[in-house]
Amino acid sequence: ERVGYPEVIYCEHKTTPQVAAIFKALAVKGHNVLATRISKEAAEAVLNDFPSARYNPLGRTVALYQGIQKETPHKIAIVSAGTSDLNVVEEAYETVLCFGNRVDKIVDVGVAGIHRLFNKLELIREARVIIVVAGMEGALASVLGGLVDKPVIAVPTSVGYGASFNGLSALLTMLNSCASGITVVNIDNGFGAAYAASQINQL
Amino acid sequence: ERVGYPEVIYCEHKTTPQVAAIFKALAVKGHNVLATRISKEAAEAVLNDFPSARYNPLGRTVALYQGIQKETPHKIAIVSAGTSDLNVVEEAYETVLCFGNRVDKIVDVGVAGIHRLFNKLELIREARVIIVVAGMEGALASVLGGLVDKPVIAVPTSVGYGASFNGLSALLTMLNSCASGITVVNIDNGFGAAYAASQINQL
Amino acid sequence: ERVGYPEVIYCEHKTTPQVAAIFKALAVKGHNVLATRISKEAAEAVLNDFPSARYNPLGRTVALYQGIQKETPHKIAIVSAGTSDLNVVEEAYETVLCFGNRVDKIVDVGVAGIHRLFNKLELIREARVIIVVAGMEGALASVLGGLVDKPVIAVPTSVGYGASFNGLSALLTMLNSCASGITVVNIDNGFGAAYAASQINQL
Amino acid sequence: ERVGYPEVIYCEHKTTPQVAAIFKALAVKGHNVLATRISKEAAEAVLNDFPSARYNPLGRTVALYQGIQKETPHKIAIVSAGTSDLNVVEEAYETVLCFGNRVDKIVDVGVAGIHRLFNKLELIREARVIIVVAGMEGALASVLGGLVDKPVIAVPTSVGYGASFNGLSALLTMLNSCASGITVVNIDNGFGAAYAASQINQL
Amino acid sequence: ERVGYPEVIYCEHKTTPQVAAIFKALAVKGHNVLATRISKEAAEAVLNDFPSARYNPLGRTVALYQGIQKETPHKIAIVSAGTSDLNVVEEAYETVLCFGNRVDKIVDVGVAGIHRLFNKLELIREARVIIVVAGMEGALASVLGGLVDKPVIAVPTSVGYGASFNGLSALLTMLNSCASGITVVNIDNGFGAAYAASQINQL
Amino acid sequence: ERVGYPEVIYCEHKTTPQVAAIFKALAVKGHNVLATRISKEAAEAVLNDFPSARYNPLGRTVALYQGIQKETPHKIAIVSAGTSDLNVVEEAYETVLCFGNRVDKIVDVGVAGIHRLFNKLELIREARVIIVVAGMEGALASVLGGLVDKPVIAVPTSVGYGASFNGLSALLTMLNSCASGITVVNIDNGFGAAYAASQINQL
Amino acid sequence: ERVGYPEVIYCEHKTTPQVAAIFKALAVKGHNVLATRISKEAAEAVLNDFPSARYNPLGRTVALYQGIQKETPHKIAIVSAGTSDLNVVEEAYETVLCFGNRVDKIVDVGVAGIHRLFNKLELIREARVIIVVAGMEGALASVLGGLVDKPVIAVPTSVGYGASFNGLSALLTMLNSCASGITVVNIDNGFGAAYAASQINQL
Amino acid sequence: ERVGYPEVIYCEHKTTPQVAAIFKALAVKGHNVLATRISKEAAEAVLNDFPSARYNPLGRTVALYQGIQKETPHKIAIVSAGTSDLNVVEEAYETVLCFGNRVDKIVDVGVAGIHRLFNKLELIREARVIIVVAGMEGALASVLGGLVDKPVIAVPTSVGYGASFNGLSALLTMLNSCASGITVVNIDNGFGAAYAASQINQL
Ligand SMILES: Nc1ncnc2c1ncn2[C@@H]1O[C@H](COP(=O)(O)O)[C@@H](O)[C@H]1O
Ligand SMILES: Nc1ncnc2c1ncn2[C@@H]1O[C@H](COP(=O)(O)O)[C@@H](O)[C@H]1O
Ligand SMILES: Nc1ncnc2c1ncn2[C@@H]1O[C@H](COP(=O)(O)O)[C@@H](O)[C@H]1O
Ligand SMILES: Nc1ncnc2c1ncn2[C@@H]1O[C@H](COP(=O)(O)O)[C@@H](O)[C@H]1O
Ligand SMILES: [Mg+2]
Ligand SMILES: [Mg+2]
Ligand SMILES: [Mg+2]
Ligand SMILES: [Mg+2]
Ligand SMILES: [Mg+2]
Ligand SMILES: [Mg+2]
Ligand SMILES: [Mg+2]
Ligand SMILES: [Mg+2]
Repeated sequence: ERVGYPEVIYCEHKTTPQVAAIFKALAVKGHNVLATRISKEAAEAVLNDFPSARYNPLGRTVALYQGIQKETPHKIAIVSAGTSDLNVVEEAYETVLCFGNRVDKIVDVGVAGIHRLFNKLELIREARVIIVVAGMEGALASVLGGLVDKPVIAVPTSVGYGASFNGLSALLTMLNSCASGITVVNIDNGFGAAYAASQINQL
Repeated sequence: ERVGYPEVIYCEHKTTPQVAAIFKALAVKGHNVLATRISKEAAEAVLNDFPSARYNPLGRTVALYQGIQKETPHKIAIVSAGTSDLNVVEEAYETVLCFGNRVDKIVDVGVAGIHRLFNKLELIREARVIIVVAGMEGALASVLGGLVDKPVIAVPTSVGYGASFNGLSALLTMLNSCASGITVVNIDNGFGAAYAASQINQL
Repeated sequence: ERVGYPEVIYCEHKTTPQVAAIFKALAVKGHNVLATRISKEAAEAVLNDFPSARYNPLGRTVALYQGIQKETPHKIAIVSAGTSDLNVVEEAYETVLCFGNRVDKIVDVGVAGIHRLFNKLELIREARVIIVVAGMEGALASVLGGLVDKPVIAVPTSVGYGASFNGLSALLTMLNSCASGITVVNIDNGFGAAYAASQINQL
Repeated sequence: ERVGYPEVIYCEHKTTPQVAAIFKALAVKGHNVLATRISKEAAEAVLNDFPSARYNPLGRTVALYQGIQKETPHKIAIVSAGTSDLNVVEEAYETVLCFGNRVDKIVDVGVAGIHRLFNKLELIREARVIIVVAGMEGALASVLGGLVDKPVIAVPTSVGYGASFNGLSALLTMLNSCASGITVVNIDNGFGAAYAASQINQL
Repeated sequence: ERVGYPEVIYCEHKTTPQVAAIFKALAVKGHNVLATRISKEAAEAVLNDFPSARYNPLGRTVALYQGIQKETPHKIAIVSAGTSDLNVVEEAYETVLCFGNRVDKIVDVGVAGIHRLFNKLELIREARVIIVVAGMEGALASVLGGLVDKPVIAVPTSVGYGASFNGLSALLTMLNSCASGITVVNIDNGFGAAYAASQINQL
Repeated sequence: ERVGYPEVIYCEHKTTPQVAAIFKALAVKGHNVLATRISKEAAEAVLNDFPSARYNPLGRTVALYQGIQKETPHKIAIVSAGTSDLNVVEEAYETVLCFGNRVDKIVDVGVAGIHRLFNKLELIREARVIIVVAGMEGALASVLGGLVDKPVIAVPTSVGYGASFNGLSALLTMLNSCASGITVVNIDNGFGAAYAASQINQL
Repeated sequence: ERVGYPEVIYCEHKTTPQVAAIFKALAVKGHNVLATRISKEAAEAVLNDFPSARYNPLGRTVALYQGIQKETPHKIAIVSAGTSDLNVVEEAYETVLCFGNRVDKIVDVGVAGIHRLFNKLELIREARVIIVVAGMEGALASVLGGLVDKPVIAVPTSVGYGASFNGLSALLTMLNSCASGITVVNIDNGFGAAYAASQINQL
Repeated sequence: ERVGYPEVIYCEHKTTPQVAAIFKALAVKGHNVLATRISKEAAEAVLNDFPSARYNPLGRTVALYQGIQKETPHKIAIVSAGTSDLNVVEEAYETVLCFGNRVDKIVDVGVAGIHRLFNKLELIREARVIIVVAGMEGALASVLGGLVDKPVIAVPTSVGYGASFNGLSALLTMLNSCASGITVVNIDNGFGAAYAASQINQL
């Protein structure tokens, strides 16, 4: 049994029947259930069983809410540079929601046009924890880290080509950030960042 | 002006006169001052000017406290595997103290003798945030992450030889941890982990 | 002529007709035959010729037993973290069986929920040699290595994403393990671990 | 005979007598001469022969100016994040000067405190070409690239520790920059960036 | 809004409807529009809307010219080694054209038959900026850099196999070039090289 | 308390006083004690306290034997290619002795002169477990693995230059060995190989 | 105009019509023509035009011989470890033949069963140059290099999995070989090894 | 006993007394003896015993010639880019001489000033085998390979900084060379290149 409250299924190496069976087993116990990295096929199987579940095809998640959920007083902000990172953003988004957090999504604020970031700074500063999602060179984490005084969790993404080496470049950028207070999760790990952010938000 | 309260000097590429001058300039303004990665020579120069400052040779820090410091209600735990990681532990320790946090140090609880970790689990669980410091294969972060329900910040260290590749092995271990809620900072970055932990502890 | 008793065919770069022909040639001499890394198509061709052979689709093996096999007095334990590593577990399992060893499979005992490992420790300690199969951060090998006093052979798997770098992270973890007595084979090499374990078990 | 006007000596693998001899041979022909990566010892030998030469110990250069030098109408800006990158800044500075360019140095404008960069933006925008020098995560190049409409030449530095991998992190950041118009030179290659900037500035 | 004049769409992670919609939105404002990394399907959708747009399937670009374009007085030269690098050459070519530059393409002048390069040297020297596109070992950049006195922007390509490591070999070659004045962009980044060349050409 | 019988001290990151104190504390309890990676200075301090201890400067070990030790019926063979690998050979040698095993050392049997290996094959085959120590390309492990039917534990060494990358080449060779039954430990980890060999030898 | 006598077409990044057209253009001039890395489709197009050409599907080559070819007095030996390396062996084989060399192929002599190599040693020693093709750990090159006194050209192949890293392991092994006289070409470059061997054989 | 005629001692990991003893043992048997990678101290010890031996401090070799040596009819050419590669050039030079070959050294013909190479092309073409020594980007091997029709053996050197990664860049360049007939040895392995060249020269 996992720590935390909703039950989470990581679907990457599971077959559609396996996913559907595990989902049902957890749901019938009354848990909220979140399936991540779910294939379209498996999502359809789950939705067949639970028509009220919410499928997010971009985030590759299915979430089933059962019973009333109390919202956190504080918010999490999810900030990202551009359209290419949206599937990681959505995975993080569904996860923070499913763990009962209020959340703001601020996308398309990449460092190449930094004024867009400044326009959203007030909104971002309302959050108690900030998740930054960025691929290519990942500089957004450093810039944002210097602008806010809250914990920043950085998610490098595998978006890019050539010397991005499938996310390695963004990962190293974030680990070497000269702004203090930034911690990092695995490449494309929107779920992990959201889980940690939720833990912090609910302290 | 930096975010955060005490002023921090990162001494790595600075000469002794530079360090001493920056330290003095910050101290005379009444700030608490923390110097990290300080050489023995520079530490002595600073202590000459400020005999009441505390030098931690293992952690390579000098800290000057001015005025009364209010302690946080919550504690941070710093957990590590063995004697080899102590300089990173001490850098983190001095930093969390300097930012006004209560703290417990739990060292020598490596996974090769896991019962020692279990003996300290109750103490660790009292903390609001946990810093795990580990070199070589860095497995302690995963194990501990599964045992606690608080944010865990993992610091890989460059301790090891051969295929540890100066901390790369521990870094990858921590990034790939199958326990949820673990975030990671740069190799040997005890300061960064402590800064993030302090931010979380004081939310 | 190879060392060891059953004849083994490594099917990776062989065509279906090649696999079928080699299998038949070895089988008619009366050997037990084990085909590893076999495709579904090649497996079906072999089963057509030898309907009594056993096909393990998860482990991608076909095994043909001819004549009575004497079982070893001692057991090998195969321990793994989760469902994602099962194809490597099954390759190892079929191999140790085919070489005439008694064996216990203990799966789903990952370090993120360490009590599950403790529940199985007595069973694992009955074995004379232990094979640990783990992907992602591979910490299970270190933890188990500290809990048992028998030779531990660790198999990193390519399961994971991002900074797991196709098994590199787990491989480095295992090579740097701070628990003594752990030796390592190539990523995903369930066969190799099983072969070595069998040699040791039959000393 | 080399392209370009002043003669340049790269001293890295040369002995003091070799450096002194080459310097003298070029100087007596009436050329301006620039020695880069010069050791303290070799610099002293050269200054002994040419007391009017200028030694920059931080930049590890010695420059000898002979005859009147016409200044370019346009300026080059050299921008950097912090004190640690100064030796690369100084190598670039001495080189652009020696090739007859007007130049502004703007240091200590790292992305962790981005307002400092904004304070200097007007000055930076006066330049025709911009050299950005940055270590650790190297995000300054991306940010600046989005703020100016001039060619930006980025120099990653080997400053940092752990996952900076001696400048690899900054190099990858700069190559993957999502701001257009940024080109990159080798780690710590202040000379190369300055040479290219000078070529552009004098078109 | 981007710096520079034509509007550019990077299509890599966008769906066909997304590309078509963004293209239309920019075009109706009267901008010239350049789509890069466009799929055949998306190109056809755009051409359906704008039959006068030019599709370059090798360069994976679609360009729409609206209004009269003033040509630069100076030329850019795009130089490459062989047929395998042509898609990067064409991406660069369409980009420099779209930004209003005169341009010469000189392909098939690889260093293995260096006389072909010498035959074209006069033409290349007419350019104000030179883009060199090369895969495998990328030596063309160094050789050409020594033969011309103009800024050289080098684009490593992912062409090759084995130890070319998808362009890493050519990238390192270009970064380490012993000819002065060479700057480098990301692997396969024909657009970026062209953008920087255009900025320089129009100073 | 460690598994296994003699107490082992890994001295790498310990000061001379720390080593001396730990050694004494273990020795007075009557244990056999083995110190590995010991500096000359620390060794002298230990020998001062325990003049009967044996210092192996090549292997960087100090061993103290107390009480009578029962020898194993079976032997371990330590096989190596040349004089450069001797410090790893000696570390393994002292370790297997200290754990009470009979042992044969067979050095200077590199694959470049394979007849020397054949001359020693009979002796090697007497062993129950074989440790192979090899640097540079590490081919000895593969060759020997094909010639014997016993467990082979391979230790890559950091001996070599250039593309040996401090032992990486030998490590990869051993992990990819096409001879079955070979398991591998960390680069230069003579102790680990010996510990595992001893466990197997005493089954 | 190329060095060497037959004309060679490297088909990797060429379309079928391009390959067919280049082949025809070279053939009508009376040259022998060798196409390497040819697809099945392109091979069929060429064979349609030149029915007497020889297609080697394993080696992915098409060779057209026109006029009488004088054979070299000396032989080249191509030696390989196993069935998996055969496509590289065949590429080398077709190339040495096409350049007019006598040749012996000796396959399936891997180091895991070294007696098979010894059985063929006399034949191998008849050659003036030896090409060794090996994947996985590539140890065959070292062993053979120590047994013969002729130039040995080693071709690492991308055969393997896990820590073979697509041929990197074999490449490093061969570069670090402790047997003298071994030179190395790119991973899977059977053509390059054959070209160099032919040059040497015809001195 | 080694293949080839003079006896060679690789001194890297040997003590001065070991080197002196081995040298003497081989010399008294009447062999020519070549010591490579010899320290200044060990060289002096050898010269004390054999005052007629020749010490090359740049190449770190000592050579002792005994008896009359027959020179080869053909020559080897050693070609290099600049002064920084000279120690590898000298190691190769002493080796080819010691194995009885005629030799021409052509240094300072780097690709950044390619006319210098053309001035020496006639001389280089007189050789039967060509050794190319180059660091940084190593492009010289490709250029020369396209200009000559003889076997070319390329030696990458560790000269350079930053992204040269201690010779990796030059190594990859040479392995990926698009000129046919180039084979490669380990980084800085002047001896190995010379040994192979000598074998070829004496066929
Ligand atoms: N050990 C450390 N590693 C990384 N960053 C640090 C460290 N110690 C301090 N810092 C950061 O460096 C800043 C001070 O840098 P500086 O102004 O160069 O002295 C502090 O505000 C911290 O953000
Ligand atoms: N999964 C595997 N990974 C690596 N080696 C294997 C594997 N399965 C079998 N082998 C080895 O491959 C040999 C058979 O190779 P082959 O003769 O090519 O079929 C066996 O004797 C084993 O040594
Ligand atoms: N810091 C530097 N990094 C790289 N190349 C340099 C540097 N300084 C000078 N150079 C180059 O080295 C050449 C001189 O090399 P050398 O003839 O060996 O003294 C100059 O013309 C420059 O092209
Ligand atoms: N398999 C191969 N790998 C690398 N280079 C090759 C290969 N086959 C042919 N070549 C080279 O490619 C040249 C022909 O290239 P191309 O003109 O593009 O067809 C030949 O002259 C060879 O130098
Ligand atoms: Mg902050
Ligand atoms: Mg937890
Ligand atoms: Mg154990
Ligand atoms: Mg810009
Ligand atoms: Mg130039
Ligand atoms: Mg064996
Ligand atoms: Mg030989
Ligand atoms: Mg040639």
